[in-house]
Amino acid sequence: MTDNGTQQQAAYVVPNQSFERDTKYIETRITADGADGYPVEPGRYRLVVSYACPWANRTIIVRRLLGLEDAISLGVCGPTHDKRSWTFDLDPGGLDPVLKIPRIQDAYFARFPDYPKGITVPAIVDVPSGAVVTNDFPQITIDFSLEWTEFHRPGAPQLYPEDLRSEIDEVNAVVYRDVNNGVYRCGFAGSQASYDAAYDQLFARLDWLSERLANQRYLVGDTITEADVRLFTTLARFDPVYHGHFKCNREKLSEMPVLWAYARDLFQTPGFGDSTNFDHIKSHYYEVHRDVNPSGIVPKGPDLANWQTPHGRESLGGRPFGNGTAPDPIG
Amino acid sequence: MTDNGTQQQAAYVVPNQSFERDTKYIETRITADGADGYPVEPGRYRLVVSYACPWANRTIIVRRLLGLEDAISLGVCGPTHDKRSWTFDLDPGGLDPVLKIPRIQDAYFARFPDYPKGITVPAIVDVPSGAVVTNDFPQITIDFSLEWTEFHRPGAPQLYPEDLRSEIDEVNAVVYRDVNNGVYRCGFAGSQASYDAAYDQLFARLDWLSERLANQRYLVGDTITEADVRLFTTLARFDPVYHGHFKCNREKLSEMPVLWAYARDLFQTPGFGDSTNFDHIKSHYYEVHRDVNPSGIVPKGPDLANWQTPHGRESLGGRPFGNGTAPDPIG
Repeated sequence: MTDNGTQQQAAYVVPNQSFERDTKYIETRITADGADGYPVEPGRYRLVVSYACPWANRTIIVRRLLGLEDAISLGVCGPTHDKRSWTFDLDPGGLDPVLKIPRIQDAYFARFPDYPKGITVPAIVDVPSGAVVTNDFPQITIDFSLEWTEFHRPGAPQLYPEDLRSEIDEVNAVVYRDVNNGVYRCGFAGSQASYDAAYDQLFARLDWLSERLANQRYLVGDTITEADVRLFTTLARFDPVYHGHFKCNREKLSEMPVLWAYARDLFQTPGFGDSTNFDHIKSHYYEVHRDVNPSGIVPKGPDLANWQTPHGRESLGGRPFGNGTAPDPIG
Repeated sequence: MTDNGTQQQAAYVVPNQSFERDTKYIETRITADGADGYPVEPGRYRLVVSYACPWANRTIIVRRLLGLEDAISLGVCGPTHDKRSWTFDLDPGGLDPVLKIPRIQDAYFARFPDYPKGITVPAIVDVPSGAVVTNDFPQITIDFSLEWTEFHRPGAPQLYPEDLRSEIDEVNAVVYRDVNNGVYRCGFAGSQASYDAAYDQLFARLDWLSERLANQRYLVGDTITEADVRLFTTLARFDPVYHGHFKCNREKLSEMPVLWAYARDLFQTPGFGDSTNFDHIKSHYYEVHRDVNPSGIVPKGPDLANWQTPHGRESLGGRPFGNGTAPDPIG
């Protein structure tokens, strides 16, 4: 999603205030039973993302882990956006080749002509009507797991298994509050006090995660779950962006041995690293948040080749895909 | 000195331009022969500094290494400054206790009522007249070494020995261009291209320095010289400020093993670490450069306790103070 509404020149940082994310999204769901009017149907929907956005990145990863590429097509916005939000500037002629629109906002307005809230990614568009069905990202990945099962690839992992659901929900809640959104609360803090509090909360939670992951390969159970996907997209942005741009600088991810090995383990697992685009990530944050980085200059560092170094986490055991298998390599 | 003239709200970053430092200072010298009208005379002059400023920090270190504390008194400005530059806001009543002025600019105007250039530290003030003699920082430390010899402490080191002078000058020239001023050229770059060029030049020079220092304890010869002082004050600011604030982020100093050990070796040498104030350093850059960091929020990280860890450089030999001795501990 965008970080704070639709305007590039908008104040991401509000003086004297802490950052509060508006978490009200379009809650219509695409379900197997079609209860909301949008039944699961292969070829009907288009997932619109930016590789820059951590919330959208989750959906890219889960779609690929589950093998939903043929069932749900992918529209990709460029890493930066202007005051009218994300655009299809990477596509020939600046138009999404399926939706034939230049801006994802056009699909929002096709659903709600006066849509008053943030134009965000990820968004799922109903291709026949050209209208956004939902941008409710925490629900989107869960529904990919539970509602689209008929179209999962053979060997798709169970990312949200029933017996682990309450533990996954618990972990997700604190990781969201302190880490996924916590880095934004550091970077968009409007006062020293709100920054200091967010920083302490973030690193306390990272220490908690390091402890939890010291002797356990994945966050919940011994296979990859939704919880790992959600933590991963924040960790992938830590050194290239959050450490400097958002002042999350107690140390780099690469200086936190357990989390760094955990993050590399995931990165080197099919579905994660191949869904990560560091260039888009860096470009987005540094070019769009002009009230954090007025020049828009994108740092050259750090060297990210170290994501490919051995992580040694195999010795902890675990079965990344449980009874399933890894997705095939891309391309 | 201030980084770019006298105004806090001034543009440190000029769009589409690279950063060019104005290097014209008040070149009057205090010399043993008094050729410029200001003879060396203990008790007559006051060195005005900020611990935040790397150029001023050099003079604090050299004054202490040479034992000139009794001969030249020290006035200390606070770490931040307003649009009229550095103030004595740390002193009771906001007045320097010797000069009885609230701002160092008052001493500039006492010398030149229409002084048109940057009000900078370090500045040496002639106490009887209340007028600035010089702010020409590269000359100030050399003159401390060569003109004030009569008042050096017993055992003062030779920081600018005649036989090494040309080599020191050579090293200083490239270190100034690529490192001391190079970090500012990264941080105040007005375009991606000028940033990229400054970054490449900075890290190429740091690699060159790492190679030079791999088997040699100090930059020139086997004792501490003026060259080490000049490099040190930039290295001390690298992780707390330049890495994030100025986007010098190929890696942290603490990730460059040779330079990091070299910097800690100096830090742990009397005269260096005890002349370094990380709080003032962080506060200055992050609070003053509002066009780089609009919120003025100061990052909590990184943890700087690691400056006290063993560096292992003793094994390279060298005699920090040559035939001299270390200064006594402070206090």
